[in-house]
Formats: sequence, structure tokens, C-alpha cells
Amino acid sequence: MITSTSNPQVKNLQLLKKKSGARNEQNVFLVEGMKMYQEAPRSKIKKVYISKSLYQEKGQAFLQGIETEVLDDHVFLAASDTKTPQGLLCVVEQFHYLLEDMLQKKNPHLLLLENLQDPGNVGTIMRTAEGAGADGIILSRTSVDLYHPKTIRSTMGSIYRMPFLYVNSLEEILPILKKQGIRTYAAHLQGKNCYDQEDYRKGCAFFIGNEGNGLSEGLSRKADAWIRIPMQGKLESLNAAIAASILMYEACRQRR
Amino acid sequence: MITSTSNPQVKNLQLLKKKSGARNEQNVFLVEGMKMYQEAPRSKIKKVYISKSLYQEKGQAFLQGIETEVLDDHVFLAASDTKTPQGLLCVVEQFHYLLEDMLQKKNPHLLLLENLQDPGNVGTIMRTAEGAGADGIILSRTSVDLYHPKTIRSTMGSIYRMPFLYVNSLEEILPILKKQGIRTYAAHLQGKNCYDQEDYRKGCAFFIGNEGNGLSEGLSRKADAWIRIPMQGKLESLNAAIAASILMYEACRQRR
Repeated sequence: MITSTSNPQVKNLQLLKKKSGARNEQNVFLVEGMKMYQEAPRSKIKKVYISKSLYQEKGQAFLQGIETEVLDDHVFLAASDTKTPQGLLCVVEQFHYLLEDMLQKKNPHLLLLENLQDPGNVGTIMRTAEGAGADGIILSRTSVDLYHPKTIRSTMGSIYRMPFLYVNSLEEILPILKKQGIRTYAAHLQGKNCYDQEDYRKGCAFFIGNEGNGLSEGLSRKADAWIRIPMQGKLESLNAAIAASILMYEACRQRR
Repeated sequence: MITSTSNPQVKNLQLLKKKSGARNEQNVFLVEGMKMYQEAPRSKIKKVYISKSLYQEKGQAFLQGIETEVLDDHVFLAASDTKTPQGLLCVVEQFHYLLEDMLQKKNPHLLLLENLQDPGNVGTIMRTAEGAGADGIILSRTSVDLYHPKTIRSTMGSIYRMPFLYVNSLEEILPILKKQGIRTYAAHLQGKNCYDQEDYRKGCAFFIGNEGNGLSEGLSRKADAWIRIPMQGKLESLNAAIAASILMYEACRQRR
């Protein structure tokens, strides 16, 4: 059992919690709680840290075959990202998807996120993308890290199942999408058509822009079509996760 | 100019920031930043607090006719709810809507929120409700306070424009809705119809349940219809704000 917060493993957990660089270097990320443990693909779990209390309560039968370390409760609290931790922290191997894999399905349904900064937003988008049956999420390198603990929590497990990919430039991958017959749509206030007036049954990709500034001019111009989500009242925009969800669920509706 | 954080006005601002009871007792709420000031109905602004820096930069012409107090920067920081405040804090009078007003429009489009706890979720729902042209939001008294600073921020100004109402029991108002010909819909995994198979052009009200537990059995049973938002993958549910938005925008789509 680890009884000190200065134990190197605990220090490393704290590092993995805070630094995306450390997560990428070690090719892992952290998930917390029983549900996230149970949903994780077994082959991806590298190690589990369990609090002394939870260990005494549950034993370790449910951890069979998984490398486990028990942490004193106060040590666990120091390693955890939550104020009232459930007592289970897993180190999970990162996923590595290829654009080619996302494009293998007939008529792919993709989401392109440009410079999104809110971890909760991006996690919620991933959760909804799974529900709507999207085939992949492509993020600009400037976007928030999907392995950020807050993002992970908001995905509610979709992080294990939804293919995603970071690219240096979204613009650079557009020719590849075009070649596959995927039509690209930018949600734009000046869109000619309402979002529900386009046909998303063929391959489609939706651009979603930064929370504060929206889509960049450069990327907007490259879209095959601008679509408008109509807004009543005096609203200037919708939340990025909401806009993404409305578009993905419209595609899902048309494809049913 | 107020130079001390122990000034009674500063203490009161801190109280208004933290305690919904104090906000209700004084019949006010706080909004921060230039944009929220500019969008506020003039007649509702009771007082503005401005940081010394912003005052020196902007003068007070833009505050004409509004009771204003200048705060030393460190005092402003203590009163503000954000880590990097913009230097403008307004005390705004609360809104008081009546159910009758929400029902005056032909074919009202309402949202009923049961025990929602996440301030960001509720604020985002209000923002989307304005965009989708909903006529009112009715919240169970157990839901989070819409005047919570985090909720206010997420509304992006909709707090000024979207009618809302807290009630002790959502169930108790259902007969009133029924009398007005409003059909009630509960988003439910076991819904017979998909959410897009119902007609929302007549009066409609959507029930949205608590983030963790969903709708209570009692309220679910009282709905005129259960509707299903289809989910692919292994997802158990959608985020409450996402579910609400998909339903409201489907109503909006049908009503165009």
C-alpha cells in the first residue's frame, strides 16, 4: 500500500492529471470511478489505483487480472481529480485512430472541431456524437485535449468508443474528404439554407468553431455549403456543443 | 471610491454572489461584463460597480443615468465571480413571470425542468430555448437557481428575455397545461415514438429530468406521451441540455 503523497507513482498520477504532454509521452490517460472502469476495454487498462476504503469494502475480485495498487485514502484524494473521489483511478492506454479508418464506412458522418477550448463542451460533443451515430471527430491541434480529466468525465464513456483524431490543420484534410465524396458544411449565420434543408444521407462533415469566435474565415470559406441554424430572439449564437448536436441529430434523423 | 473589501456594499455583493436566499430577499441578481450590462433592460439595473481601471479607461459616459460606484481593483476582484474580471458588475432586479403570461400565446412551446442541478446546463438550456423560440421554462423548486452567477453566464443574455418560473410541484401545474390544450412529452428510453414522429405544432411541453437520475417515475407517468431520442452505440443517456435542445429544435423545425 502507498501511504505517502510523495511516492513517485502518486507524483506521476498528478502529472498525468494535469499535463497533456505527460499523458501523450506515456501514451496513457486517467479515468475515475467504477463505471468508467467497467466500461474500459480490458486490454487497454494498464494499472488500477484503489483507495484503502474501497479496497476494504469491495475486495479485489473485480480487479482480477489487472495490476492494482492500494492507496491510503488521503493519498488517493491527492491523486484524484474530484473532491469526493469514488476510490478508483485507472491508467488507460491512449487510442490511435487513422483517418482512413473513419472513411471506411459508406457515407461517413464526421465532425470537424476547430479550436474548441471548453473541456466539458468537447466531452459532451463526443457523447452526443456516439448517440447520433457519427463515425469520427477530427479536431484541430489547437483544441482542448480529449484526455483532459474534465473532458473524459463529460464523455460518459464515449471516449472508449468514438474514433477521434487531432490534425495540425483541418484545411489540409479537406481534399481527402472531398475525394471520398464527403460534403462539408459550416454552421454559419449567413448560411443560405436552414440546416434541415440539406441532404446528409450521403457522406457529410460538419465544421464547429471556437466557443467565443466561431469558425475561422479560412475554414468557413473552404466549406462546400454554409448552413444556418435559425435563431429567434436576440441570440447571437448557440453553444458549440448544442449546435453540433442539432446538426448531428438532424443527420441521424435523415439516415433513419 | 470603495477601497476596502470590508465595505458593507462589497460584503453584500459577495453575499449576492453566493446565496440564492439573499438574492431573492433583495429581489436582485448580479451580472458581469460589458456585454451583459449592455443587454440588460435599463429599467432593471439598480446599480453598477466599476473597477478603477475600467473607470479610468472608459469614463462614465456609458453609465449615464445609472447609479454607479467605483471599486479599487483589488476590491473589485474580491466582489467578482471571475478570476479575470472585466471590471463591471451590475445589480439587476429579478424578473417575475406568471404562468398565465406563458400560456397567452397561441400553441405555447414550453420546457419543464425537474430537479436540474448543473448551473451550466440550465443556462445553456435557457440560451437554446430563446433560439428555438420556446415560450417559457418552468422549473421545479429543487432545480438550481437561474440567478446563480454560472447559470447567468451560460445564458449569454437570455436571462433577460426568456420567461421562466419556479413551482413547488411540476405535477400540480399539469392540469392547467392540459386545460390549455398543451400536450406533454417525457423524453424516455422506452418511448414508443421517436421524438420526430410527434406533432409539436400544437401547444407542447417537454419534460427534462435530473442529470444523474433522469425524470422521476411520478412525473413520467403523468406525461401525455413518452418520446424516444434514439441513441446508437452503448450510450445510456444524453446530456440534459443536449436532449432539451434536440427536442426544442425539432419543435422549432416543425413550426417553421
